[in-house]
Amino acid sequence: MATDQNKFQAIISHCKEYGFIFQSSEIYDGLSAVYDYGQYGAELKKNIKDYWWKSMTQMHDNIVGIDAAIFMHPSTWKASGHVDSFSDPMIDNKDSKKRYRVDHLIEGFAATMNPEEGASLIKEMEQLEAAGDYKGLKDLIDRHKIKCSVSGTANWTDIRQFNLMFSTQLGSVAEEASEIYLRPETAQGIFVNFLNVQKTGRMKIPFGIAQIGKAFRNEIVARQFIFRMREFEQMEMQFFVRPGTEMEWYNYWKEERLKWHKSLGINPERLRFHNHTKLAHYANAALDIEYDFPIGFKELEGIHSRTDFDLKNHQELSGKKMQYFDPEINKNYIPYVVETSVGLDRTVMMILSEAYEEQDLSTEEKQDSRVVLKFPAKIAPIKLAVFPLTKKDGLPEIAKTIMDQGRPHFRCFYEEKDAIGKRYRRQDAIGTPFCVTVDHQTKEDNTVTIRYRDTMEQERIGIDQLIELVNRKIAE
Amino acid sequence: MATDQNKFQAIISHCKEYGFIFQSSEIYDGLSAVYDYGQYGAELKKNIKDYWWKSMTQMHDNIVGIDAAIFMHPSTWKASGHVDSFSDPMIDNKDSKKRYRVDHLIEGFAATMNPEEGASLIKEMEQLEAAGDYKGLKDLIDRHKIKCSVSGTANWTDIRQFNLMFSTQLGSVAEEASEIYLRPETAQGIFVNFLNVQKTGRMKIPFGIAQIGKAFRNEIVARQFIFRMREFEQMEMQFFVRPGTEMEWYNYWKEERLKWHKSLGINPERLRFHNHTKLAHYANAALDIEYDFPIGFKELEGIHSRTDFDLKNHQELSGKKMQYFDPEINKNYIPYVVETSVGLDRTVMMILSEAYEEQDLSTEEKQDSRVVLKFPAKIAPIKLAVFPLTKKDGLPEIAKTIMDQGRPHFRCFYEEKDAIGKRYRRQDAIGTPFCVTVDHQTKEDNTVTIRYRDTMEQERIGIDQLIELVNRKIAE
Repeated sequence: MATDQNKFQAIISHCKEYGFIFQSSEIYDGLSAVYDYGQYGAELKKNIKDYWWKSMTQMHDNIVGIDAAIFMHPSTWKASGHVDSFSDPMIDNKDSKKRYRVDHLIEGFAATMNPEEGASLIKEMEQLEAAGDYKGLKDLIDRHKIKCSVSGTANWTDIRQFNLMFSTQLGSVAEEASEIYLRPETAQGIFVNFLNVQKTGRMKIPFGIAQIGKAFRNEIVARQFIFRMREFEQMEMQFFVRPGTEMEWYNYWKEERLKWHKSLGINPERLRFHNHTKLAHYANAALDIEYDFPIGFKELEGIHSRTDFDLKNHQELSGKKMQYFDPEINKNYIPYVVETSVGLDRTVMMILSEAYEEQDLSTEEKQDSRVVLKFPAKIAPIKLAVFPLTKKDGLPEIAKTIMDQGRPHFRCFYEEKDAIGKRYRRQDAIGTPFCVTVDHQTKEDNTVTIRYRDTMEQERIGIDQLIELVNRKIAE
Repeated sequence: MATDQNKFQAIISHCKEYGFIFQSSEIYDGLSAVYDYGQYGAELKKNIKDYWWKSMTQMHDNIVGIDAAIFMHPSTWKASGHVDSFSDPMIDNKDSKKRYRVDHLIEGFAATMNPEEGASLIKEMEQLEAAGDYKGLKDLIDRHKIKCSVSGTANWTDIRQFNLMFSTQLGSVAEEASEIYLRPETAQGIFVNFLNVQKTGRMKIPFGIAQIGKAFRNEIVARQFIFRMREFEQMEMQFFVRPGTEMEWYNYWKEERLKWHKSLGINPERLRFHNHTKLAHYANAALDIEYDFPIGFKELEGIHSRTDFDLKNHQELSGKKMQYFDPEINKNYIPYVVETSVGLDRTVMMILSEAYEEQDLSTEEKQDSRVVLKFPAKIAPIKLAVFPLTKKDGLPEIAKTIMDQGRPHFRCFYEEKDAIGKRYRRQDAIGTPFCVTVDHQTKEDNTVTIRYRDTMEQERIGIDQLIELVNRKIAE
C-alpha cells in the first residue's frame, strides 16, 4: 500500500487514466480548481446522486425535492448575509502585486518559526480574526516583518475583505442590467421557496425540502483535487421543525446521515463527528461528519441547526410572511431549520479513497499486481462486463444476447479483444463488480463463468440466473 | 377545452398552484426569465433526465456520458466562435436609453404596416441581416423613421453587437483574475474532452458522448415561460463518425430522436421535422424537431451535422491533435460530428402541454370537472397514492403497510384527510397514475380499490399484486 500522500496522488492519476475525472479544459492547460467528470466518473457521481435522492426523498414521505435555479434575486444574498460577510481578509504586496489570504500568509510564516513561537503566533492571529480586528492583523504582519515570497519585501497594503461570490450581469438593456451572483450554496433556493412548497404541497411540520445542485465559490486557495473546487455540487436537505424541537431533530439527522455514509460501505473507523466550537452566525448547534481521506480527516458533510435565521431574514427583507400555522398547537411561527449538507464531489472522493486498492498478487512463479476499485455494486459505473473467450465459434453472438438481456436493467460493457486476464484487470480498475466469460462450454450447457471483482473467485452460472443475480446484488 | 393561448396561461397557473414550477426568487418579485422547479416539477424533470440518460447511454454500448463543468477555459469559446459571433445586433434610443434587438424593433414596426409592405420590410431586413450589413439596417430604421415606444423619438445610436454569454471573474488574485464565461451550450464540454474520453474509454468510431447540464444565455427577450430562459438545461449527445458517413448518421439520429419523443406518449401529429434552409456556420445539415406547443410549433430539439468544425478549431487553437486513428481504413482523421441537442425544460413543457386536460364531467344531476395531467406512468412524479377511507378502524395502519411495500420501489404519497373524491382530484392534478383506497373490506379479504387516473375506472385488486402491477406499468 502506498503512503497516504502517495495514495492521494495515485488516485488522482488513476482517475485521469481510467476516465473518472479530468482537469477542466485540459487541452487549454486547464482551468484552476475546476474538474470534469469523465465517462466512469459521471456514472459514479450520478449513482451517488440517485442514491441520495432516493434515500432522502422517496424513502421519506415528509421530504420532497426541488430544483431551484443557480441564478437568484440578489436580495437573497443580502438576507442570507453572503453579500456582507461571505469573504476572506486579503492583503496585497505592493511590490509584487501578489495577493494573499491573511491567515495563509501568517500561517506560512509561523511554520518557519520554532514550534512554540509558531503556535503562539497562530493563537494571536485567531484571536484577532475572531474579533474582526484587521488593524491588529496588519500590525502582526508588520511586527514580524513577514515578507512576500515573490518580491521578498514587507511592503503591504491594508487588509481588505474579498467576497467569495462570483458575480455577473443579468439583462441586456444597459440601464436595466443588474449584478447577480452565482449561488454560493443551494440552501437559499430552498428557503425562498419554503412557502410555495409548504402551501402547494400541503406539507405539515416537521417536513423537509431536499435539493441537489451546483454552487460556486471563488476560493482564494482552491486545491486538493476535487475536495475544494470553485464549481462544486451539494446535496442539501433543510428540515423544518417546531421551535424548541430542533435539538431532537439535529440529533436524529446526525445519526441518520452517518448511517447513510456507512450504507455506502464506508469503514466506520474512517468516519467521525466533529462538533463546531465556534458556531456560524446562523447556528445554535453544528457539526461536521468527517472522513479520513488520504489527506487526513476532513469535512464531508455539515449538520447545522440553523434556527429561524434564514426564514426570518427573508421575511424581513421581502416583507413576505414566512410563517407556518401549526394546527397541533394552534399557533403561527417561523419554523426552525435543521440542515444536512453534503458535498457531492467530496462524497465521490470518499468513495474513490475507500474503494482504491493496489494489490500485490505475486506468486512464487510470477510477479503480479492489480489496482481495484471496490465500489459497492449499487454505485459502480458498470455493473456487468461480458466477454466472449474468443472472437469466433459463435461466442460473440452468445455474449451479445447476454448484453441484450442485461442492458435494459443496468449498464453493461462488452469487450472481445485481448486476453481474458487483461480484460478482467481493466474492469477491476474501473470497479466493475461482475464479469462473465462466454466459452465453448456455454454452447453446450448455457452456463458462463462469472468472476467476482473483490475475491477474483470464479464460478459457473446459468445464463438464465445472471440478470437476477446482478439485480439482487445491486439492490443490497 | 380552453383556446390555445388560454391553455398556455392555464398550464402556467397550474404549474404554480400544484408545485411544478415557480418563478425564481418569487418572494423578491422574481428574476426575469429564471424559474425554479417545485416538488412535483423537480421529480418530473428528473424522471425525464433519467429516461433520456438511460435511452442514450445505457441502451447504447457505444455511447458514454460525461459531466463537464459549467466553467471552461475562455479559449474554448474563442475556438467555438461564441466570443466573436454569439451575439445579436442591438440599437439604443439616445433619448430613452432603451435598448432594442434590431430585428424586434423592425418587426414591431412592420406589424403596424399593411401586410404587403410589412412583409416586404421584413424581407429587406432579413437580407441585410444575412449580409451582416449593419449600416444598411440602420438606414432602414432611419428611412422608416421607426420610433422608440418610450421616448417616441427616432434618435438612435449605431447598431452594435451584444454578446449573449454571461461573464464573470475567476480567481481572486487581482492580476491573475481572468474573465470566463458561463457556458452557453454543453456541447463544447464534450468536444474539449473528446480525446480524453476516446483514449481512456478505448472508444471506436462511431461512438457518442452524452451530457446533461445547465447552460446560460443572456437573452435579450427571454419569455414564454420555461421555453426561453436565461438559465436552462440541455441534454446533448455528440456522435463521432468517419467523414463521409455523417449524412447516414444524421438520418439515423433524426429518426431515433423522433421515436424517443413518441415513446413519451406524444401525439405524432404534434411533432414534425423542420429543415434549416439557412445553415449555421458549423453545419452541413441541420433540422429541428418541433412540437406543437399551445403557443404553436416551436423548436424542441436540434439535430445537426456539425462536420469537423469544432474539433478542428480546438486543434488549431490548442495545438493538441484532435485526431482519431481508424484501424479499419488505416487512417488518421478528425472525426465528423452529428449532434442531438434537446432542451430539457422544453421537454418538460411539451410533456405538460401534452398531459394537461380540463375535463367536463358533468352529469344531468350535477356539475363536475377536473384538471388531469396524463403523464406516462414512467415519468409521473408520484406513482401511487394510498388512501385509508377513514382515519380509524385500523385503516391507516393497513395503508401504511402498503406505503412500506411501495416506498422502496417508487415515489408513493399518503393522505388520510378529506373525502376520497377530493383526494383523487388532487392526485389527478399532479398526474398520479394510480390511487388505492383501503376500506373495511380490505380487512376481510386483503384487497383494495385501485383507481386509474385516465379512465377513472376502479377495480378491486389484492394488496399482494399491487406493487408488481405498478412496477409493470412504469416499465411500459
